[in-house]
Parts: sequence; C-alpha cells; structure tokens
Amino acid sequence: MFKRRLFTPGPTPVPEKIMLKMSEPIIHHRNPEFKEIFAELNSNIKYLFQTEHNVYTLTSSGTGAMESAVANVIGESEKAIFVNGGKFGQRWGQLIKTFRGIPLEIKKEWGEPPTVDEIIELIRQNPDVKAVYLTHSETSTGTVTDVKEIAKAVHQISDALIVVDGITSIGAIELRMDAWDLDIVLTGSQKGLMIPPGLAFIAVSERAWQKINKTENRTFYFSLKKAQMALESGDTPWTPAITLVIGANEALKLIKAEGLENIWNRHQRLAEGIRIGVKALGLNLMSKNPSNAITAVFIPEGIEFKKFNDALKYEFGITVAGGQEQYKGKLFRISHLGYYDELDMVTMISALEFALKKAGYKFQFSSGVNAIQNYFLMNL
Amino acid sequence: MFKRRLFTPGPTPVPEKIMLKMSEPIIHHRNPEFKEIFAELNSNIKYLFQTEHNVYTLTSSGTGAMESAVANVIGESEKAIFVNGGKFGQRWGQLIKTFRGIPLEIKKEWGEPPTVDEIIELIRQNPDVKAVYLTHSETSTGTVTDVKEIAKAVHQISDALIVVDGITSIGAIELRMDAWDLDIVLTGSQKGLMIPPGLAFIAVSERAWQKINKTENRTFYFSLKKAQMALESGDTPWTPAITLVIGANEALKLIKAEGLENIWNRHQRLAEGIRIGVKALGLNLMSKNPSNAITAVFIPEGIEFKKFNDALKYEFGITVAGGQEQYKGKLFRISHLGYYDELDMVTMISALEFALKKAGYKFQFSSGVNAIQNYFLMNL
Repeated sequence: MFKRRLFTPGPTPVPEKIMLKMSEPIIHHRNPEFKEIFAELNSNIKYLFQTEHNVYTLTSSGTGAMESAVANVIGESEKAIFVNGGKFGQRWGQLIKTFRGIPLEIKKEWGEPPTVDEIIELIRQNPDVKAVYLTHSETSTGTVTDVKEIAKAVHQISDALIVVDGITSIGAIELRMDAWDLDIVLTGSQKGLMIPPGLAFIAVSERAWQKINKTENRTFYFSLKKAQMALESGDTPWTPAITLVIGANEALKLIKAEGLENIWNRHQRLAEGIRIGVKALGLNLMSKNPSNAITAVFIPEGIEFKKFNDALKYEFGITVAGGQEQYKGKLFRISHLGYYDELDMVTMISALEFALKKAGYKFQFSSGVNAIQNYFLMNL
Repeated sequence: MFKRRLFTPGPTPVPEKIMLKMSEPIIHHRNPEFKEIFAELNSNIKYLFQTEHNVYTLTSSGTGAMESAVANVIGESEKAIFVNGGKFGQRWGQLIKTFRGIPLEIKKEWGEPPTVDEIIELIRQNPDVKAVYLTHSETSTGTVTDVKEIAKAVHQISDALIVVDGITSIGAIELRMDAWDLDIVLTGSQKGLMIPPGLAFIAVSERAWQKINKTENRTFYFSLKKAQMALESGDTPWTPAITLVIGANEALKLIKAEGLENIWNRHQRLAEGIRIGVKALGLNLMSKNPSNAITAVFIPEGIEFKKFNDALKYEFGITVAGGQEQYKGKLFRISHLGYYDELDMVTMISALEFALKKAGYKFQFSSGVNAIQNYFLMNL
C-alpha cells in the first residue's frame, strides 16, 4: 500500500463527490439541463468573487484569463504597471509586452510585496497609466499583496484600472471585488475552487468595460466582448469544458454551504499552523508577508533538496512544489489551499519531519508536530 | 426511467471506462507519473494524426487551436485564403482578420466544398498567399473538403501552407497529415477522440515551422514556440487540463487497439447507414459531398422543427444538433462521430421515425429502419 497526498498549489485535491459527479454521462452544452447548471454557476461564482458584476467562464488555464485581462484592456503603446517580484507578477509584464503595451516595472526582491507608495509614485510619474496589474497571492513566493489598499489609493488619483490575479487567493484569502473597488479579478479552477485544471474565471467591473469598449487589440478566443455577448443568452462563445463546469458548480455549492468567511478563517488557521510547525523545526519562511494559501520555506543550509524531496515523494507519498526560476532547489512550497483541514496539516508537518530526518537535517524530532498540535488545540 | 442518448458532433459520448479513469484522484502535472502519461499521449497522438511531426496539447476548445494556427502563422497584412461555405470556414476568416492578415474569401453555398481549381485560381491571382485555411469536415453542413487533392495542387505552384481544421474529421475520416503533405492540422478532444471538451491538439510540419519562426504577431497562451519549448522537456507551457489529458491518453489506446483504418471504415459504414435510412424516409441531405462524421438533413416541408426536436429530445431522450445561422430551424444534424456502433444508428433512425410521426410527417412507418437494417446486413 502506498498512499499519495497532494500539497501543491494547483492542482489541489478534488473532493471525491465532485470527481464522481463529473464522471456522470456527458451532456450537451446547448441542452436546457446544462444551461440550468451554467446559470447556477454564474450566480454562485459572483458570491465567490464578492461581486455583482458578470464573471466569465473561460476554457483555459489561469494564464488564459491573464491574457484576456491584458489583450482586451491594453492597446498599442498604452502604459501598464506590473510588479516583478515573482514568477506570476513577471507574467503580467510578458503579457503587456506581447500585446504591445508599455510595461512599467516595479522591481522587488522575491518574497516582498509592492507598497502602496511605490505604485502611487510610479503613477504620478506616468499619469497616463491605463492599468495596474497585481498578483494577490504570488504562488512562486507565497506572498500576499495588499490589493485593497493599493486599489483605494490608486482610484483616488487616477483612472487606472486595478487588475488582480486572484489565482491562488480566491476561495482562500479575503478578497471582496466590489467592496474593494477592484476592476478585473480572475482565477483558475484547480485552486480554491478545488476542481481539476482547465477552467478560468474573470470578473469585469463597469469601469473596466468602459476601457475594454475603447480598446482595439488582437484577441478572439479570449475576447471579453464575445464572452459577454454569449453570456447574455446563458452561453459561452466556444464549447466549454463541460465536465469541469459541472464540477465547478458542485464546488461552488460546497463553498456556499461552508461560507466564505469561514473558508478564509480556515485557511488563516491552517496557514498559521504550518508556519508555526515549520518555524518550530528551525526553518525559515521566504515571504515577508506570507500568504494563507501557500507557504514557501527555505531548504536548510547543507541539506540537499533532491534528497529531501525524494524522501517526501517516494517514501511518504507527499507532493509539494519546489522553488521556481532562481529558487529552484533552494526552497519548497507547501500548499494549504482548498480541500484541507487541520489533520491534513498535522500530516504534512509529520511527513516533513520524516523527510528532513532522512535528508540528514539535525533538529528535535517531533517538535514541529508538537507545535502545530498545540496551536490547533488553542484555536479549534 | 428516461434514457438519454447523445448524437451531437461534440461533445460525443465518452466511453464509460474513460470517464471512470478520469475520476481517479488527481495527480500533479510535474510528477513523473503524469509525465509518463503525457509522453505516451504525445507518441500515440502522432498515430492519430498520421504524422511524425510534433503535436501540441492546448487546454482550450478547438477554436483555441484555430487561433493558434492563425496567430503564429500570419503576420500583419499577409494574405491567407479561407472558404466561406459554413460556420467553421467563416471562423478562419474572422481569425485572419483579427490578427490583421488579409483574408481572401472563396464563397460557396453552404453544403458545397471548394474545388481544387477555385483555390489554385485564387493563388495564381495572389502569388503572395501565405496559407490556405481549410475545414476538412464542415460541422455546420456535414460536408467534406478534399484536402488531399488541394494540398497536392497548391504545393506544386506555391509556398503557401495548407492548414486543416480536422475538428470533426480526425478519428472519423481518413486524414494522413504526412502522406498528404499537410502543414498544420488540428482537432478538439470532444469529437473523434471521444473525451469531454477542454483540450485541443495541433500538429505542425517543418515547412510550417519555417514560416512560424519568421512571423511576429500577438499571441502568448497559444504561442507555438512556447509549446515547442515546453514539449522539449515533456511539458506544456501552462497547467494542462490534467484529467482530460489522462482521458485522451486512454482514448488513444482504444483508437490504437481498434486501428485507424478500421475506425475510418466503421464511420463510413455508420454514415452510409444513416444516409440510406434518412433517404428511405423521403428526407433530403444538405451536403453535396457528405461527411462520414455528421449528416445534415433538411426538415421536410410543412414540419415544424421545434415540434420534431421536442419529441426527439423530451419523449425519446435523443439530442441531435440543429441548424446554425441561416439554417436555424431548417435542418437537423445527426452525429455518428466517435463512440458509436451499428445498433446506435438503428436506434437513431428508429427515434427519428417516432419523432417525425409525432411532428405530423407523412411517410411509410418503419421504412427507415428497414433500409438501414438491410444495409448493415449486407455490410457487416
């Protein structure tokens, strides 16, 4: 017997009842039965985004939704701000360049979020900035950006849109699209939504629509105008990933039943437990402002990543994510995003101790598990 | 009890064992276990396309692969031919325009394929044409285009690429990418591949790569260069629709076991059976060159489409496709593409007779079923 457990920031584990629901005989996407499911999804997804605006369903990974948020918004030679402080922030910059906008970079050390002042300063120097592209929870570093305060400050001095990659934050970390006055927010299906990858969702404010309606760029499959036209008849412009739409609808029912604030609190508790457990083992977090969706931890001095990770994966069946780009082999990332509870986190810290031991790390065995257990005992 | 049966050209029915395979606990796309599956898929998909060239897996509908085949190939103000003789042929024209190419239209009555001469003539008038965009099996009309002869003739006089939408043809109708010297061929997952929608596949020849490497356009998510770079390490550039990749791999094993020529012959037999059954009922086919993947049939004079289709759908549980655009309400389309056998076709003709009867059509009851039964008896 060899049990496997997934602690990666996408795909995240899918609740068994959703997998079974998705394996029912396939239905046609123009059938009334599917239209009913899609209508229910379109209503419940607004709750997830905390918005009254329309949320469009795309058949793609989250990157497709990011492309949509650039190609429909930024015209040739228009300026847009992005934050280069992690792999997914960088992706905004690549997209702005691809669609011939002018990317204005805020460069940060990986693990450091941008400050309100840095963004306001850059807008003052470039009052013609059309949009600020942010990463709410940067998956490569486990870092949260304060999109609420940034949106507030930017809207006071500028017409620039606030566009938020919520890929690993939605359904994990507090995000209120309308109350925070965010203009475009997007996510993927294999994160807080707890279903397999293949769908992305993008919500668009009235202010964003005014810009989109004036923007000419080259986009077809990810055209938001086409998505809006189709949505008006309860449809998608192209054949959607039907089974995943059915899964997303089931997941949204689970999310509604638990309640978003409870979900945010659960993620806060699980993340705090992991941070306490990891620190008790003498390990260091990468992030200056850690996300409740994912925790990035430095590999301790003298320990070989491969040895540690092989033990975790092949002896204990646990998959975590490694470091990306310049941090390959230098850190590991534990996801606590989606379908997880407290005991899953204890399991994770336990496996971490075994694997560190196997890799030759010196520490007081069981101290991590003790710490997380005690934290949960006080916070149940 | 109310049984449902799907006879639509995407989604097509998914074999039960594939649905169950896809509902197994999700695995991570950077895990060796998934990489092995993806490597197997990448090898077997070449068999399906009858090519030695690389085939790239995109997480999107077939339209995404069409966008990829235009955005990576056609630069600003470059000429490309497309055939306006059905909804999906038109889509090529829209895409060429979106990416700022110059679309050269060959206009046909819906149901009529383009001739070799028409295309050669247009290329002679425009020797700088960069590509000819074809629809092998036009789903809106059930019409086949002779891409083999067109490719042969075009390559003799021009460097133009032959790009083939094989969305409802691959895995149903004979298509040999390499032997026919096709440059780009693409398909979707919910057709001859028999799995749910959400994946598309695009194969690219050496000749096409020479053009792609010289082309500058605005594309990121659907960039073939990024897809090729990722494939070199057995990967996709963005998170793929993992469960669908697993399903596609299972489907390709079934396809290999049956054998492509057997599959093409089966589709030929099923399509011919449907055509014989439909004609025996006094109905008329729309297409001048009918596809073995889908049969478009005119609603008989005096019969109301809605009455007929409601009976089919709500009394007999059968979903067929209706007409599109100007043919809405004027025809219905029976798919025999994918996971179907002879008895499914008899079932379809039987239900058709019941629904026509309910809608008030006058005909000799059972004549369709007799005709298809006799055809299969002679051709088993």
